[in-house]
Amino acid sequence: MDIGFIGLGEMGGAMVANLLKAGHSVRVWNRTPEKAQALAAAGARVVATPAEAFAGDAVLSMLADDTALRTVIDAALLEHAPRGLVHVNMATISVALAETLAREHAERGLHYVAAPVLGRPDVAAAAKLTIVAAGAAEAIDRVQPLFDAIGQKTWRIGALPQQANVMKLAANFMLASAVETLGEASALLGGHGVAMRDFLDVITSGIFPGPVYAGYGGMIAEERYEPALFKARLGLKDVRLALAAAEAVSTPLPVASVVRDSLIEALAHGDGECDFAVLGKVAARRAGRA
Amino acid sequence: MDIGFIGLGEMGGAMVANLLKAGHSVRVWNRTPEKAQALAAAGARVVATPAEAFAGDAVLSMLADDTALRTVIDAALLEHAPRGLVHVNMATISVALAETLAREHAERGLHYVAAPVLGRPDVAAAAKLTIVAAGAAEAIDRVQPLFDAIGQKTWRIGALPQQANVMKLAANFMLASAVETLGEASALLGGHGVAMRDFLDVITSGIFPGPVYAGYGGMIAEERYEPALFKARLGLKDVRLALAAAEAVSTPLPVASVVRDSLIEALAHGDGECDFAVLGKVAARRAGRA
Amino acid sequence: MDIGFIGLGEMGGAMVANLLKAGHSVRVWNRTPEKAQALAAAGARVVATPAEAFAGDAVLSMLADDTALRTVIDAALLEHAPRGLVHVNMATISVALAETLAREHAERGLHYVAAPVLGRPDVAAAAKLTIVAAGAAEAIDRVQPLFDAIGQKTWRIGALPQQANVMKLAANFMLASAVETLGEASALLGGHGVAMRDFLDVITSGIFPGPVYAGYGGMIAEERYEPALFKARLGLKDVRLALAAAEAVSTPLPVASVVRDSLIEALAHGDGECDFAVLGKVAARRAGRA
Amino acid sequence: MDIGFIGLGEMGGAMVANLLKAGHSVRVWNRTPEKAQALAAAGARVVATPAEAFAGDAVLSMLADDTALRTVIDAALLEHAPRGLVHVNMATISVALAETLAREHAERGLHYVAAPVLGRPDVAAAAKLTIVAAGAAEAIDRVQPLFDAIGQKTWRIGALPQQANVMKLAANFMLASAVETLGEASALLGGHGVAMRDFLDVITSGIFPGPVYAGYGGMIAEERYEPALFKARLGLKDVRLALAAAEAVSTPLPVASVVRDSLIEALAHGDGECDFAVLGKVAARRAGRA
Repeated sequence: MDIGFIGLGEMGGAMVANLLKAGHSVRVWNRTPEKAQALAAAGARVVATPAEAFAGDAVLSMLADDTALRTVIDAALLEHAPRGLVHVNMATISVALAETLAREHAERGLHYVAAPVLGRPDVAAAAKLTIVAAGAAEAIDRVQPLFDAIGQKTWRIGALPQQANVMKLAANFMLASAVETLGEASALLGGHGVAMRDFLDVITSGIFPGPVYAGYGGMIAEERYEPALFKARLGLKDVRLALAAAEAVSTPLPVASVVRDSLIEALAHGDGECDFAVLGKVAARRAGRA
Repeated sequence: MDIGFIGLGEMGGAMVANLLKAGHSVRVWNRTPEKAQALAAAGARVVATPAEAFAGDAVLSMLADDTALRTVIDAALLEHAPRGLVHVNMATISVALAETLAREHAERGLHYVAAPVLGRPDVAAAAKLTIVAAGAAEAIDRVQPLFDAIGQKTWRIGALPQQANVMKLAANFMLASAVETLGEASALLGGHGVAMRDFLDVITSGIFPGPVYAGYGGMIAEERYEPALFKARLGLKDVRLALAAAEAVSTPLPVASVVRDSLIEALAHGDGECDFAVLGKVAARRAGRA
Repeated sequence: MDIGFIGLGEMGGAMVANLLKAGHSVRVWNRTPEKAQALAAAGARVVATPAEAFAGDAVLSMLADDTALRTVIDAALLEHAPRGLVHVNMATISVALAETLAREHAERGLHYVAAPVLGRPDVAAAAKLTIVAAGAAEAIDRVQPLFDAIGQKTWRIGALPQQANVMKLAANFMLASAVETLGEASALLGGHGVAMRDFLDVITSGIFPGPVYAGYGGMIAEERYEPALFKARLGLKDVRLALAAAEAVSTPLPVASVVRDSLIEALAHGDGECDFAVLGKVAARRAGRA
Repeated sequence: MDIGFIGLGEMGGAMVANLLKAGHSVRVWNRTPEKAQALAAAGARVVATPAEAFAGDAVLSMLADDTALRTVIDAALLEHAPRGLVHVNMATISVALAETLAREHAERGLHYVAAPVLGRPDVAAAAKLTIVAAGAAEAIDRVQPLFDAIGQKTWRIGALPQQANVMKLAANFMLASAVETLGEASALLGGHGVAMRDFLDVITSGIFPGPVYAGYGGMIAEERYEPALFKARLGLKDVRLALAAAEAVSTPLPVASVVRDSLIEALAHGDGECDFAVLGKVAARRAGRA
């Protein structure tokens, strides 16, 4: 397919590489052009403006947050996009902005698909992302070959694009809550002289298998918070988005409120760039042991 | 081995059956004798007093809570127990009582091992319990054949018996927090018209495999809270014990505080005998949707 | 003085009436002109555009929230305002917007004073507001006669305008927390058959005198949440602003998080237009008694 | 009247002094006899056993907590007390123990009145305590002259003794919440460079008059946490009792849960003997500013 791609951070760059490998023609644009140049060697065509990327069969975007997205994808860009174009937004953005984008695209005869991904850069590089897609079924059908090139599984979960964002935020909320809870459990165990390592062995071989408890739990057990797989600062952003999405439908999320407070405390102590497993340090500090 | 067993509830009864199958000789005692009679057919010897059970090579106890334990296992009982006897307490009790029991046994030349188990009655019946043991290594060595008869794995995690109780409470705290978080996520998703079932498919096939998210999440998705696998009332008891164990070492557990509040709310609405997945109903009610 | 006034809601209208009584000349503008007409009879000059109000010796504004303010007071308006004009913003807005406004005014040679008020419409009508002012001292000096006409006391608390907003938000946070706590205490007392009325008699005649405990406590005791003195919906807005102001300086406010969750729960049950004493109903509902 | 008095701490000692001044005959007993001797000079008769104090027209007790009370006032003591004796318990104890005591007294033909007091030692010395009494009206009538000698006002709030304890715990919960909130507000203000002192001036001259906001707020503003008027350790005890009383009637108290967590954090940092205004230090530490 002939596609555009906007936003070439770690995640976006890895996706483009896999799209090229699968034989797609990709026009790429990035705010800082160096990242685009690096992909040129792999066959990407570097374009000078977002508008040039916003054409062809489809355009994918992977921008950092609401503000970054709004700086690039504005009314003027949409106005000049070819009718019938499918725009697939793979970033984790607010539910409110997703609703706005869906409406703005529809008004101009454009298709808008929200397809946030689960998985970190190493998973993206291996083309094993989990894709959570929502939007009109025929639009998703058209871009499914692209999803197949970058992910191992696409879940279709609704006709309203923002529903994919809600699901992504709910998943990240679950993740953040599990890490906060691991941190608190670690503080409890430490106070009684029980090794967190032993605890993890017990729970990960039984009730809590899988990467989250072993991975983040291990970082807490070793008090090793760098390099960050998922930064505390970004974890806070996602929890904030989950709280806002919940407030929009009058839903309290008391555990999310607690996690937000703990992440703010991490930032207050200069640990915003650490992995958000640093919640273990926050819990230990409160107990006077960090 | 020649052992005694005190406390023949669902869990205790299943353990005794497996101990008998493995060829051990078991004297059993229960507050209400009917349950003991049922095991007589399988080869257990029913005794009339706890003191008769408290003899032989070892005695195992599985009583409901601190109060039930203290009613049966008092100073008089310990005073008359044969020196060198190993008492293995498999119940989930408070850390404070575990410390007291350890001291009382030691003063009288008795061995005290704390060995709480992970697993529900069906797991106990299959002799697949996970056993978390703490106490003197030589005492645990002596009763290891008993653990092998009822569980699939014994974790030894410390020389102080109460450390096993701390670990058990920490595990149950993790469990309760995961369920609360599932409940809150469900309310968030429901507010935006996303199916909890779809969400579970996504997370259990990726970041959150294992029985907890699938099992309790499934109950929340189906709003099916009976029959209870783990009652809300008992979940509250364990969270309360975790909070007390944490307070004893000056450790705040803010997520546990939230879960405690939610479980109290469940009880206030008459749902104490429901499975503690009923936390999903609590979260939905707060959002005006239950 | 020759002044403009923008925003003629209940609060703004009462202020203008008092400014006229004190002999000032007031040009008034409101989005919906009916409210302006009502003040014409009292001597106000109704103008057709915000720009006409934004002139003379000073302009006061009292708009509902950040969005309402931004719709009216934009770059174009400020660009055409006469240099040296003092703009006094008396509304409760976000700290972030206050910082932005201060910068935008300074860049154009305008003075910006933040002067949020404590007190409800009846207090405004009696010219007894408490004014919390921040900004350049000389700018505040110039508008002090205006403050004297509408309030009984002006507190000057800093040179940075946003500091006044922080203080206002902190005060409203204290207020909301007191009401939440009254609600929870009421639920506790009710559970034990103790009358909230008796409790209020005891605490308001001793440790907690003053209007907050007697007033909101009385509404909770009588379960009378309408008419609203301070709507739950607006209380939630202010708590949200306090949380945002705190997050901007990496400060967790766990009690504010709890109050936010409770107010969301009130809105979820259709009580957003009730007085925020309806937090008492939320607390009672959680306890299964509402 | 001819009365006994058990428990001669700071509060109890001050009460006895005032009872003697008012002309009553007082037999005093204390665990450590030195304190009793000091009162002998003022006319008290020192007795050697609690039983000797538990006689005459009435006996008042003021023991530190549930454990201290249970060590002294047990079944044997009540068994030998003269029928018809009125026992007035002025200490802050758990609601559960109050219920138990009420039953135990009634079974033996003794009257039990709960009469916890509001006020610290200086208020007790000035005979200006606020007394919250519950129990049978005729029993309270008989001891009213004693209340008049030590307090300025007696509130009668119910026929069940434990209701007075509930009210006292609710009042202390309100107090602790106000202090936590002051601490959080202080952290918010500090982050924006606004003086806590200025904030207190504004709120105490308007919405929050009275001793709590001025007193504890002042300690937070000055970061002066010693000497303690009300120790953090004892504040935690009272919040714990409030939470237990609420749980007994299935009532969540989310703000109390937050305050409990903060007080535990204070203890973890060695500040248990500080005034519980040290909650201000906890809030500042979380924000990285203490």
